[in-house]
Amino acid sequence: MNHDDPTLDPSRRSWVPSANQVGADFPVQNLPYGVFRRAPTDTPSLGVAIGDRILDLRVALEHVAMTRLPSAVREACGSSTLNPLLALGADAWHAAREAVSTILTEGVGSDPPPEGWLPSQAEVTSLLPMTVGDYTDFYASIHHATNVGRMFRPDNPLLPNYKYVPIGYHGRASSVVVSGTPVARPSGQRKGGAGGAGEETPTFGPCQLLDYECEVGLVIGPGNNLGETIPIGKAEEQIFGYCLLNDWSARDIQAWEYQPLGPFLSKSFATTLSPWVVTSHALAPFRAALPARPPGDPAPLPYLDESGLSGGIKLDLEVHLLTAAMRQSGLSPHRLSRASFLEMYWSPGQMVTHHASNGCNLRPGDLLGSGTVSGTTDDARGCLLELTSRGRHPITLPNAEVRRFLEDGDEVILTGHCHRDGFASIGFGECRGRISG
Amino acid sequence: MNHDDPTLDPSRRSWVPSANQVGADFPVQNLPYGVFRRAPTDTPSLGVAIGDRILDLRVALEHVAMTRLPSAVREACGSSTLNPLLALGADAWHAAREAVSTILTEGVGSDPPPEGWLPSQAEVTSLLPMTVGDYTDFYASIHHATNVGRMFRPDNPLLPNYKYVPIGYHGRASSVVVSGTPVARPSGQRKGGAGGAGEETPTFGPCQLLDYECEVGLVIGPGNNLGETIPIGKAEEQIFGYCLLNDWSARDIQAWEYQPLGPFLSKSFATTLSPWVVTSHALAPFRAALPARPPGDPAPLPYLDESGLSGGIKLDLEVHLLTAAMRQSGLSPHRLSRASFLEMYWSPGQMVTHHASNGCNLRPGDLLGSGTVSGTTDDARGCLLELTSRGRHPITLPNAEVRRFLEDGDEVILTGHCHRDGFASIGFGECRGRISG
Repeated sequence: MNHDDPTLDPSRRSWVPSANQVGADFPVQNLPYGVFRRAPTDTPSLGVAIGDRILDLRVALEHVAMTRLPSAVREACGSSTLNPLLALGADAWHAAREAVSTILTEGVGSDPPPEGWLPSQAEVTSLLPMTVGDYTDFYASIHHATNVGRMFRPDNPLLPNYKYVPIGYHGRASSVVVSGTPVARPSGQRKGGAGGAGEETPTFGPCQLLDYECEVGLVIGPGNNLGETIPIGKAEEQIFGYCLLNDWSARDIQAWEYQPLGPFLSKSFATTLSPWVVTSHALAPFRAALPARPPGDPAPLPYLDESGLSGGIKLDLEVHLLTAAMRQSGLSPHRLSRASFLEMYWSPGQMVTHHASNGCNLRPGDLLGSGTVSGTTDDARGCLLELTSRGRHPITLPNAEVRRFLEDGDEVILTGHCHRDGFASIGFGECRGRISG
Repeated sequence: MNHDDPTLDPSRRSWVPSANQVGADFPVQNLPYGVFRRAPTDTPSLGVAIGDRILDLRVALEHVAMTRLPSAVREACGSSTLNPLLALGADAWHAAREAVSTILTEGVGSDPPPEGWLPSQAEVTSLLPMTVGDYTDFYASIHHATNVGRMFRPDNPLLPNYKYVPIGYHGRASSVVVSGTPVARPSGQRKGGAGGAGEETPTFGPCQLLDYECEVGLVIGPGNNLGETIPIGKAEEQIFGYCLLNDWSARDIQAWEYQPLGPFLSKSFATTLSPWVVTSHALAPFRAALPARPPGDPAPLPYLDESGLSGGIKLDLEVHLLTAAMRQSGLSPHRLSRASFLEMYWSPGQMVTHHASNGCNLRPGDLLGSGTVSGTTDDARGCLLELTSRGRHPITLPNAEVRRFLEDGDEVILTGHCHRDGFASIGFGECRGRISG
């Protein structure tokens, strides 16, 4: 992957007009993959987002640029889920990208294109881009870990393993849903009431401290066989791309259940993904080394040493909130926070290498969450637990509503953008979820 | 399901001679399901274990007892994995069982049966019975939780949530393997050396405290939709059956990584299942209420109250060890422990109901581990961590070998049996795994 790649050339323009608008998330340099269908009975298609449209890959298979692809790549592009393409690896991904870029730059041989080639994103239903075999969630922002740790251990917020181990845990794959899926407020056991004091025994009922977590999701490619590892120098080859991920969290349930085996029902009721997977290829211009570790911090152990690699991604994330009252008043979503994915303590490659370091097999379509992305400033805290200090410092919204945690009808919208001088800016679209009571 | 069910009649005998031998795991009253193939290139078949043989369900579809089944059940029986049958629910399971019981009692119309109907278990390769979408591991033995907790908190072994919450965590589905699959010793970060003292910083290398955990696995049937719950009175309908499960554990990696999000790489390198799933139907005679909670313990919260239900299973579990030296000397495996699955603090139904209590969706083929099954006595400890008190009290084997934790070449063999006066005894077969270096 190099920056002279013509598919990344910032002067390249698409014949789809909306792709060339300033600030468009999906210019022809992006080309993220998703899965959609037009009607509930349709077979889902792979698609590539371009401007406010989607190139239907199954339809596009008849284009000469696609007919030249190896048959395995053509078959994968005609599938109803990304998994077959994920399994093929980087050469296939590059070939497919070149063909799609050619089609969206040069045209489809008629103007306007034939019916069916370019449905509007607003007209279709997005589905999960891939079948998630296993979902793992990391905890790779030291700012998040410190902010959360400080609430429980003011003098010693970070546990001793944090700077050595990319901490992660197994998540629930069945309840990973695509952006737009309503999120039902979970019930569960909680003790001590919303304020952390009170009852001697737990009660069962609706979560009172419902939260989001703004994360980045990594989508795994070919993977490794059980018993094999993935050296740090090979980790990037395993990452097909990235999406936005909301790791919904029931803080009261979590506080009561999580000892000693970690979060369980406080997380497993829903995890929302954005519909578009932005490829590693499209993100190449935005790679950079993670920030240097502060003096005194240990160097990563050799198996996690990525010195000389651009392990991080300069990706700006924002969290927006739209309450029911704001929606009724026609107000726009209010930005709660923004943070940079570059400010992580552990990189995506380190997460992949660590995950496989015991021989655990990753499979095509596996999903890795980065953990909440928070930065150093007060407005860079990627969840309400941090922003409101567990409700002690409520947020006042522009319409004078107050939030400690999420209320029914609240919609959380995550966005992400990459900018770099000399390159086309790209976006991740939206990851939306609204709380139902 | 009632005990007058003819498929459970203890006087029923099969025309397969090995099924009628005293002590056989698989008499005609058992009829557990598995998946197997004869040659590596064969399409896998569902099979039902009978004596030392397997009824090949795809072949048996031509028998008149099977031709009468609803077409969806026939299709599921002709599949290569249990998942389609799991999805159909209890009526389908009962119909299939009756047909199989009829075939194995009445004969197939020729004696000996035609080629292909009844391969020998020794001749085929067992595969995982189902595709596991999500694997969850519970911690439902209070004796195990107390024994392990005492090592870390002598005065306060049980955490305050234990008697209220059926504690569990998400496990790794990709590395669930079938009995007989070699288990490679994982590498990972560990700190402090085998004795728990020593180095200031962690190192990466092969696990030094490798352990097994003897558990029971629950195989989920139709499941629930996201956002729906499973009332305790309906939980049993969701459990197709049970198998033996070895939750291999790297104790040194676990001790260093598990705070604050729980076990991760210390568990995800392998989980071994027995090849045969013993159905809830076959276990009906062995159901009983869990032991009464000791005075002073809280009653389960109402959503977990199963008063009047026979939530437990009288299932005797044993763990056996065969070392490389024992194998070379022709010695038999040595029994390390035995415990009763009835002595759990939380029942299978409570695990299912708790799991779905936040609306998390269970899917056909999901796997729930019970957690290590330990009892009150010293010889009822279901893992080496407990048996040797983390290596402080090594075990001496009959050939004078000593074990604190598992050595390369060690093979762990789990077995399970159900006995009750007036009923045919049944067994679970074996769950085997050998450590490779």
